[in-house]
Amino acid sequence: MKHTKINEKFSENFKNIPKSFIREILNIAGSEKMISFAGGLPNPDFFPVEALKKSALEAFDTNGVEMLQYAGTRGYLPLRQWIADRYNKKYRLSVKAKNIIITNGSQQAIDVLSKMFVNPGDGVLVEKPTYLGGIQALSAYSPRFYETKLEKDGPDIIETGRVFDQNDVKLMYAIPNFQNPSGITYSEEKRKQIAALLEYHNVLMLEDDPYNEICFDENCEMPVYAYAPKHVFWTGSFSKMIAPGLRMGWVVIPDGYAEYFERAKQSVDLHSNNLSQYVVYQYLTNNYIDRHLIIIRKAYARQCTFMQQLIEKYLPHDVQFTKPRGGMFLWLKLPDRIDACKLVERTLKQNVVFVPGVSFYVSPNGKSNVRMNFSNASEKKMEEGIRIIASELKEMLQRVNGVSH
Amino acid sequence: MKHTKINEKFSENFKNIPKSFIREILNIAGSEKMISFAGGLPNPDFFPVEALKKSALEAFDTNGVEMLQYAGTRGYLPLRQWIADRYNKKYRLSVKAKNIIITNGSQQAIDVLSKMFVNPGDGVLVEKPTYLGGIQALSAYSPRFYETKLEKDGPDIIETGRVFDQNDVKLMYAIPNFQNPSGITYSEEKRKQIAALLEYHNVLMLEDDPYNEICFDENCEMPVYAYAPKHVFWTGSFSKMIAPGLRMGWVVIPDGYAEYFERAKQSVDLHSNNLSQYVVYQYLTNNYIDRHLIIIRKAYARQCTFMQQLIEKYLPHDVQFTKPRGGMFLWLKLPDRIDACKLVERTLKQNVVFVPGVSFYVSPNGKSNVRMNFSNASEKKMEEGIRIIASELKEMLQRVNGVSH
Repeated sequence: MKHTKINEKFSENFKNIPKSFIREILNIAGSEKMISFAGGLPNPDFFPVEALKKSALEAFDTNGVEMLQYAGTRGYLPLRQWIADRYNKKYRLSVKAKNIIITNGSQQAIDVLSKMFVNPGDGVLVEKPTYLGGIQALSAYSPRFYETKLEKDGPDIIETGRVFDQNDVKLMYAIPNFQNPSGITYSEEKRKQIAALLEYHNVLMLEDDPYNEICFDENCEMPVYAYAPKHVFWTGSFSKMIAPGLRMGWVVIPDGYAEYFERAKQSVDLHSNNLSQYVVYQYLTNNYIDRHLIIIRKAYARQCTFMQQLIEKYLPHDVQFTKPRGGMFLWLKLPDRIDACKLVERTLKQNVVFVPGVSFYVSPNGKSNVRMNFSNASEKKMEEGIRIIASELKEMLQRVNGVSH
Repeated sequence: MKHTKINEKFSENFKNIPKSFIREILNIAGSEKMISFAGGLPNPDFFPVEALKKSALEAFDTNGVEMLQYAGTRGYLPLRQWIADRYNKKYRLSVKAKNIIITNGSQQAIDVLSKMFVNPGDGVLVEKPTYLGGIQALSAYSPRFYETKLEKDGPDIIETGRVFDQNDVKLMYAIPNFQNPSGITYSEEKRKQIAALLEYHNVLMLEDDPYNEICFDENCEMPVYAYAPKHVFWTGSFSKMIAPGLRMGWVVIPDGYAEYFERAKQSVDLHSNNLSQYVVYQYLTNNYIDRHLIIIRKAYARQCTFMQQLIEKYLPHDVQFTKPRGGMFLWLKLPDRIDACKLVERTLKQNVVFVPGVSFYVSPNGKSNVRMNFSNASEKKMEEGIRIIASELKEMLQRVNGVSH
């Protein structure tokens, strides 16, 4: 009888998936005592529990049997139509339900699109920094990653064009609204420039847009999709709009590709959860969503400002941070000589956690960066947590300065 | 500006995923008029709508906030413990919750395990015939398929051993209970022999077991997992036990592999649907399940027998069929000169659909085979549908015989 070593049979692709600091920490951060700035968790105080419960009852009463049966892979048609209508109203687009497929959060859309397009070694351009979950999903298909620097108003266009020019890039993965982790939002100008580059170089884009509705002001730029609809797959999510436990996202798909996405999704899980689809649809048609969004936008804007004030109050003055117009994250730059991984090791001992910047790069970068989630913690906990980070950071700075003298 | 041809950028792996006859037909078969023997659909008359509705209410009332938040990738711990307890009671095993991960139906477990283990060209052994969804999920990783013949009591052991001996096989995919599509159940002896072969040749197995609880008698053989627990990944599903719209399955994972499965699942969708997990758990702890299973087992056994009687009554006497002890399918062998694809083309025009045998092989086989689902249609529709199949089949036989004279 032969024995199996655990790692003996893993596929080469699987071995490329990096661990998730966030998910590993979530297991710890789940404990009551932990103050977490780590995950992109909505504030549970605002979950619309009663409205969703009422919607669930109605879904069982009106469509109970249909909801419990197997269903089409593309998802519940009325829900897809609702999403299309909302986009069309907001952006004056003409998205059709047939171009929308429901997924298990937008994470699944990243996985399925990677499966559809990425051969080992294929060129994929990502922002520098970018979302860890995106890196994980893509890495499972062993692409060759390229990076483009993020400026205050979006990607460095010169650098992006040069990467497309000099390399065979198949796909660009990007988060133009309230980017995770940087908080940066692309300007209208840069969206148009990126769209033109995609078309000129015939590169596909995965425009990841989970924070679309978590904007603090009314100035919503058009999606890149609007400027290059044949090249852009545009994802969305109910995780931040309503609640992540529902695991409901979607992707808007260029004409001609939906049947292929459908086939790939079939192979991974046949179709998305019907219970959640019907409950979410019922919730949306009950017109709860806009009132809910007003509440959480205001709350998150307040929490965002409050965190910025705390950082200015407690952290050293040479710590820089972004001022996002939406989303859930601040992106901090600590003094160069500070390793954020060492800082989080120290704060973890005092039950405070954030994600060190290195997690958000496909190259060795971000040593002194920190991603701070501002949506999850209460203001009291936020202050407590940031004081602890400040105190540990100051101690580290003193030791580093001490050594260098 | 360059133009993209739709199929220009697809990955080599994606191109290998076969279309699903069943899923394509499901879109048609969704129409009220269609009599469908195609999908593995439970009979919706038995869906426990009220009990699930009550369970959903209780889940919102007791755990509403927690249920709506992001959660751990492995799934809801009490649900995993319930599954472990049930197996341990039924089979006198000692499965632990830490060895169970919740998935979007067992289909996702097949995809994630394929992702973990299968490099392009790696050897994968499947039954001949086997489940189309399994072929689809595996094909997306471009394995080299081998087949082993199914006899009345399970795989041909000599042939299986020879395939393992002569080739580098990494994984065996098999459905030992009420196999889809053949309805065959492995004998205890063959389970032990397969387990011994897995251990001797150090081959991993994906033991797909969605019909475990849909057994018409009390004689449940032990899973292959029980005889080779270090080599077997054993999936299960609530889709047939309760309802498929809940999209809840799981996989029992050998010691040491769970953290790796977790990482792969993270990359595909972070975690499974929380709403469904809590609702299902509430339903289970309310002790609805065993009464429900008694009802559907009796009903499906009756429907199975009834379909066999109809086949004997209406179809030509040289049509052979299996007599399963559970599950949802009969497997028919029509006369050699009949092409089941041509037969279904004819019956579709009269709104009757089944799946031709060719869908269930990774090699060109099954031309005269037919998979018939007996769980979904009412007895009245079943009789109507089989009369239509019989009439079309007789007409085809007359034409074929006419030509050959």
